[in-house]
Amino acid sequence: MLNPVKVGILGLGTVGGGTVHVLQKNATEIARRAGRGIIVTHACAKEVNKTHPYNTDEIILTKQLVEVIEHPEVDIIVELLGGTTLAREMTLQAIAHGKHIVTANKALIAQHGNEIFAAAQEKGVMVAFEAAVAGGIPIIKAVREGLAANEIDWIAGIINGTSNFILTEMRDKGSNFADVLAEAQRLGYAERDPTFDIEGIDAAHKLTILASLAFGIPLQFDKVYTEGITQITAEDVQYAEELEYRIKHLGITKRTSQGIEARVHPTLIPKKRLLANVDGVMNAVLVQADALGQSLYYGAGAGALPTGSSIVADLVDVTRTLTTDPGNRVPHLAFQPNALVDVKILPIDEIETSYYLRMSALDKLGVMAQVANILKENKISIEAIIQKEPVTGSEHVPIVMLTHRVLEKQINQAIQTIEQLESITGQVTRIRVEML
Amino acid sequence: MLNPVKVGILGLGTVGGGTVHVLQKNATEIARRAGRGIIVTHACAKEVNKTHPYNTDEIILTKQLVEVIEHPEVDIIVELLGGTTLAREMTLQAIAHGKHIVTANKALIAQHGNEIFAAAQEKGVMVAFEAAVAGGIPIIKAVREGLAANEIDWIAGIINGTSNFILTEMRDKGSNFADVLAEAQRLGYAERDPTFDIEGIDAAHKLTILASLAFGIPLQFDKVYTEGITQITAEDVQYAEELEYRIKHLGITKRTSQGIEARVHPTLIPKKRLLANVDGVMNAVLVQADALGQSLYYGAGAGALPTGSSIVADLVDVTRTLTTDPGNRVPHLAFQPNALVDVKILPIDEIETSYYLRMSALDKLGVMAQVANILKENKISIEAIIQKEPVTGSEHVPIVMLTHRVLEKQINQAIQTIEQLESITGQVTRIRVEML
Repeated sequence: MLNPVKVGILGLGTVGGGTVHVLQKNATEIARRAGRGIIVTHACAKEVNKTHPYNTDEIILTKQLVEVIEHPEVDIIVELLGGTTLAREMTLQAIAHGKHIVTANKALIAQHGNEIFAAAQEKGVMVAFEAAVAGGIPIIKAVREGLAANEIDWIAGIINGTSNFILTEMRDKGSNFADVLAEAQRLGYAERDPTFDIEGIDAAHKLTILASLAFGIPLQFDKVYTEGITQITAEDVQYAEELEYRIKHLGITKRTSQGIEARVHPTLIPKKRLLANVDGVMNAVLVQADALGQSLYYGAGAGALPTGSSIVADLVDVTRTLTTDPGNRVPHLAFQPNALVDVKILPIDEIETSYYLRMSALDKLGVMAQVANILKENKISIEAIIQKEPVTGSEHVPIVMLTHRVLEKQINQAIQTIEQLESITGQVTRIRVEML
Repeated sequence: MLNPVKVGILGLGTVGGGTVHVLQKNATEIARRAGRGIIVTHACAKEVNKTHPYNTDEIILTKQLVEVIEHPEVDIIVELLGGTTLAREMTLQAIAHGKHIVTANKALIAQHGNEIFAAAQEKGVMVAFEAAVAGGIPIIKAVREGLAANEIDWIAGIINGTSNFILTEMRDKGSNFADVLAEAQRLGYAERDPTFDIEGIDAAHKLTILASLAFGIPLQFDKVYTEGITQITAEDVQYAEELEYRIKHLGITKRTSQGIEARVHPTLIPKKRLLANVDGVMNAVLVQADALGQSLYYGAGAGALPTGSSIVADLVDVTRTLTTDPGNRVPHLAFQPNALVDVKILPIDEIETSYYLRMSALDKLGVMAQVANILKENKISIEAIIQKEPVTGSEHVPIVMLTHRVLEKQINQAIQTIEQLESITGQVTRIRVEML
């Protein structure tokens, strides 16, 4: 058997520890598959947690990143620094030293991937990032290789476990957003500062990557429309159920004749769809492709071992193609670098979908007719409607409706007019609906 | 760009036509991904359907298999002959001529894979077979590459669309097996001779392959326990629902301390599981692995274009590694050929699972106690029980129960004793139960 491949890890936190753990625990199986061992020889860490379940005896530990990056014996660098500034710098430096890169850093790839891939291309090294999207699910591999025969139509994914956990709990317990967020933080499913997860930024990083892989376009994080789940109320969750829908936080990217949609937002989807039944912290990605039709990939989107599983799969892949001519390797963004095309990403105003609308109306004759008229004037047809009894002691009744498909700018115009009605109080809640 | 890779197809039926169709329709996308074109230059067909949606103008058509197999310009042979005798012979002959092989033939791989892979190994060519398991779902790639870091614990899959369609219809419409089978035949979801599908043979071929990929064991089709869905009655489907379960036809392979389980049979699984909600002709494979935990892969398990999608993905993979040193390619059975181990496949008597039992009892005092006693003597505990009112005009009541986990030979012994009771009429229906 060939000599083992030598890996240097930047960062020995949760994911770094998980990676070392998986490599050590399954060393025999991995070597039986890869045809040679894969061992961590160097690691850079500020401090090493003494209670970890892996063995650091044969790992050279250092606090100096360059000692790992520049070490002549290290073949592959696993970048787990987090953030984008230092991570970008160290990744480019490692590439310049001819190292292959494996990373779980979605922000790094979404924001600096174009630059990093170009540098890797020039140097003839690989940058693998399976762990950057949907944790342990081999979705990059599925889209980039498994679906290589297809023109992909769209991808819709639950790609943030924290948001999915919160929405699942809101549905199961009827709780409101703030209470469930506090619970998620207690359980360790949400960070102390949960902004990246609940505002959709983490999902937008991942969707940026999926959009490029699906359509062969450069990474364009700044063009992705991003909306989190902080505005979702217990009543919206409840009304969605009554309409036989469920609210999920989705990343959606779609090819249309006008351009490419790339958007992250809460979405009503029919209750019976598999995606509607992906609960808790689990992730799932649904892909519509022209030859295959729909396919779905489900699994753990985070955690030390699931993420370690993807990182180690990448290490095996890199190991297998170390001697392959760079031009024959799977291209970073699924399409050959010279075959990327710069199709326009549509502004959110120009996407077309259906909508869930909820408004609070004065309980008097004719209000519904007024609202219906405004929708009609804006050429929006109504698919379903629920009018509730007024809450006791209140003069207001909630009106909930589903529209047919319409351009977002049209619905916004209609909403603006509806909000000016004297009989409508406050703002109209609007959530996008996808049939999938 | 490099010259196109040249493909010869043996068989231009549904799947062969689908393959040519996908290659032609998505030629640009495929070349953008693979870095070079992939074109069909030769095809062997008894006759070519004139209404096909693809172009045969630039394909050299022949009725002689050897003209394709031996043609010096052909790089890759797509074997779509069906059956195993001629397919085996032609595949070995093509390998001897140094051709790479792509096949959708599950029977061929399950029954002759060991021989074929050995020949390919010796000749330094690849045999790719993504389309052989679960049609368009990239499950071979997921297990062989995506999960390469994991020790796999078990795989459970809905891997025959015909059986899944029949069970779905039986549930949705309350119909019996024979009526739904007739309907499936009318709709083209079941063959005129449906034996391979409804008796579980097709699923057993696929499970044979999955077991090898998961555990690094040689292909052993003859050791797979195979039971179809022909004995499932409308009442069993109904009782399962009442117990919050659903009957699915599953292929299951599991690593235990005693050996490896490999079995295909109808199975009750909890209604809330994603796998229980995979309906109609769709396929899905659930994998439990030590690092990743559970992951699920869902999509179309058959059809011209979905199967074509997998075949073309294999063509792209083969194209990418044409110049790779054979030792660095992904091994046929996931593990390096010299690292396969011959772990025992357990006879069905020695598997352990839970059971659904249904029996018809005389409606008189003490019958239930007799049955419970027999189970107790065999150390089988009862998880749930339904006793129904007697059907009008009948002296018999159905008794339905779920047991805890027990060895199959123990439950069989108990059933034998129960069937000897005077108060029990006819045979006891026994269906395995898995919690997943």
